[in-house]
Amino acid sequence: MDLEDEIIMLPGPVPVAPRILRAMSRPMINHRGEEFKEIFGRIEKGLKEIMQTENDVFVLSGSGSCAMEAAISNIIKNEKILTIVNGKFGDRFHEIAKRYGDPVPLEYEWGDPIEPDDVRRIVEEEKDLKAVAMVHNETSAGITNPAPEIAEIARENDLLFIMDGVTSIGGIDVRVDEWGVDIAVLGSQKCLGMPPGLSMISVSERAMDRMVESPPLYMDLKAYKKSADKGQTPYTPALPLFYALDEAINIVMEEGVDARIRRHTHLASMVRDAVKEWGLELFPRLNDVSRYSNTVTAIKMPEGISADELRSRAKKMGVVIAGGQERLKGKIFRIGTMGNIREKDVLMVLEVVERVLRG
Amino acid sequence: MDLEDEIIMLPGPVPVAPRILRAMSRPMINHRGEEFKEIFGRIEKGLKEIMQTENDVFVLSGSGSCAMEAAISNIIKNEKILTIVNGKFGDRFHEIAKRYGDPVPLEYEWGDPIEPDDVRRIVEEEKDLKAVAMVHNETSAGITNPAPEIAEIARENDLLFIMDGVTSIGGIDVRVDEWGVDIAVLGSQKCLGMPPGLSMISVSERAMDRMVESPPLYMDLKAYKKSADKGQTPYTPALPLFYALDEAINIVMEEGVDARIRRHTHLASMVRDAVKEWGLELFPRLNDVSRYSNTVTAIKMPEGISADELRSRAKKMGVVIAGGQERLKGKIFRIGTMGNIREKDVLMVLEVVERVLRG
Repeated sequence: MDLEDEIIMLPGPVPVAPRILRAMSRPMINHRGEEFKEIFGRIEKGLKEIMQTENDVFVLSGSGSCAMEAAISNIIKNEKILTIVNGKFGDRFHEIAKRYGDPVPLEYEWGDPIEPDDVRRIVEEEKDLKAVAMVHNETSAGITNPAPEIAEIARENDLLFIMDGVTSIGGIDVRVDEWGVDIAVLGSQKCLGMPPGLSMISVSERAMDRMVESPPLYMDLKAYKKSADKGQTPYTPALPLFYALDEAINIVMEEGVDARIRRHTHLASMVRDAVKEWGLELFPRLNDVSRYSNTVTAIKMPEGISADELRSRAKKMGVVIAGGQERLKGKIFRIGTMGNIREKDVLMVLEVVERVLRG
Repeated sequence: MDLEDEIIMLPGPVPVAPRILRAMSRPMINHRGEEFKEIFGRIEKGLKEIMQTENDVFVLSGSGSCAMEAAISNIIKNEKILTIVNGKFGDRFHEIAKRYGDPVPLEYEWGDPIEPDDVRRIVEEEKDLKAVAMVHNETSAGITNPAPEIAEIARENDLLFIMDGVTSIGGIDVRVDEWGVDIAVLGSQKCLGMPPGLSMISVSERAMDRMVESPPLYMDLKAYKKSADKGQTPYTPALPLFYALDEAINIVMEEGVDARIRRHTHLASMVRDAVKEWGLELFPRLNDVSRYSNTVTAIKMPEGISADELRSRAKKMGVVIAGGQERLKGKIFRIGTMGNIREKDVLMVLEVVERVLRG
C-alpha cells in the first residue's frame, strides 16, 4: 500500500495540499534577517483575520498542547482557574492547570453539553477565580461548546477567558474580539490544513496586563511580544513550518474565511446525513444541531463490528479514520472534516465507510 | 537576489541538503499508527549512535531552548544547580534555572575558558547542589568547553550533569555514556544538517530516578518515556520534521559518525588558517587549540570595517555569516561550519569574506 495514496480523515493531522508541502522545501534563511521578517508580517496579518482579532497573535514552534500550556502558565501562578471539562482536551486543560495553580473543575460526561447556567453558578460561588478555561471544539466527543456565552459570563465577572480553538478556528466561526476571548489557541494541523508542529495564540491587552512572572521560558508570552516587535520569534522558529503557514494562509485568503467556514459546515452535515442513512447514532446527544462539531463527527459504534476492525478495513481501502480516545476507545469512531478537503473527498470516505459497515 | 542561491554559514540554521528538504514533502500520516512507529524506531536507534549512548533519547517538537528547559525543569524544583556561564547559551541555562530553582552561577567573561578547578572548588563548597549545567559548545563565543572533565567532577560528587550539546553533537566528539552525561541536549538545525524545529534529549537512568514531579506538561520527560515505549510522542509530533530527521540520520550513517567529526574538525581548521592569513585574531584567547569550536569560528572585527558592513557585503555576494550576539554585537563575526557542508563550500565562503575584508 502506498501511503501517498491514503487520505487521512482524522481530527488532525489532516491531508496537506501539495502547494503547502512544496513550500516546506524552500531553503533555510536567517531567522533574524529581513526575509524572515517579511514572512512573519504576512503570517501575523493573516492570523488576525482568521481569528477575527486585533489582539497580538504569536506563533509557537510546538504542538497545540504547547500553546494550551502557554495560555495557562502565563496567567495562573498558585491561583484559581475554572476548568470546564466535557472531553479529553478539557481534561488536558485541567491537567495543565494543576501544574500551575488551583483548578476548579466543572465536569460533565464526555460529550454532554456544557450549560452556561452551571458556569454562571460556579463563577458566582467561587471566590478568587482569575480565569475560565474551555475547549471550544472538543474533538474527542464531536461537540462544539458555547464559547460566546461562556466568554460573556467571564467578562461580566472580570475573569479572563482562555479558549482552546485548536480544532475550531478556521473551520468554525470564531470571533475573538466580538466574543471577548482573552486568549485563543490554534493548531496548525487542523482547520488551516497544515502539517503539525506549530501553534498560534492570541492575547488580549487585558490578559497581557495580568500575566504572572516567570512562566516557562519557552512559553513566555512577554518574550514573544518583545520579539514580535522586531518581526522575530524569541527562539529559533521551525522555518519550514513557517513557510507552510505562509502558504496555508494564502489558501485560506483565496477561499475567504467565511466561505471556508461554510464549506466545513457543509462537509460535516454530509457526514451527519450519512450517519442517519446508515441507521447509526451520533455520539453526543444534543438538541441543538449547531452544537455538533463541524470539524469532526463522532459516531457510536454499531453492533457487529469493532472499532479496530472498522478502522483497519477502511485503512486497507486507503481511508484513515479515527477511533475513540481513552474512555471512549472502542465505543465510537470519528471522521474529521478539517482543512483543505473537498466534497469529493468526503463522498469517497463515506462510500468506503458504508461499504465496510455493510460487511 | 534569489534566496535559493545563498549559502547560510551561520551557527544554525544551516544549509539543508535537497534530500532532506524533499523528505519533508511526504504526505501526513497518523502519528498513532504503525508507519510513525517505524520512523520513530529508526530515529531512536540513529540518535543513540550519534550521541554514543544507551540512554533513552526523546525528540521534542520545539527548538533547542525547549529541550534545555526540559532538562532543567525535570531535574530542579526549588533546588540548587550550578550553572557555568561563559557565553550567551550558558546564560540561557542560568535564566531557565532561575525559573525552577536556585542556580549558583560560575561566571566567566564570554569566551574565556572554563577551568575545571573552579568547578571543583564550588562543587565542594556549595551544599545541596543537585546538578551541574554547562554548554558544551558555546557558539556565541566560538569555544568548546571541557565536558568530560566537568562530567567527572559531577559524578564524583554525586551530582547530575546536564550538558547542552545543541551545537556539538554530530560535529564534535561527544560520548554521552563514556563521559557520564546524565542529560544531553541536541538541536536539529546544527550538526545534523536539518531545518530548525526539533530538539533531542538523552536521559540517564540516574536522572530519570531523580526527576521532580510536575514539570511543564509539554516537557514532561516521564510522559515522553511512557509514550516512547509505544513508539509514539506524548503530543502531536511535527511530522515533516520527523521525516527530515529520519533522512538526516541516513546521511549521517552513510558518512559515519567519526568521519563526520573529522570533517567538521577539518572545515573549522580551514577557517582558522584563513583567519591567520588575513592577519586577524580569533575571539577566544586559548592556549589549547582543541578548545576552539569546530562548528563555529568567532573572529574579532578588524579596524576599518563594521560587522554590519562585512555581513551585508558578504550577503550581497550570496554568503550569510553571523555577527556577535548581545554584548559581543559589533565586536566579532562568526562563520559556522556545521552540518552537511563540504570543503568547496568553505573555500567559497572564505574567498568571499577575504574579498570583502580587502575592500
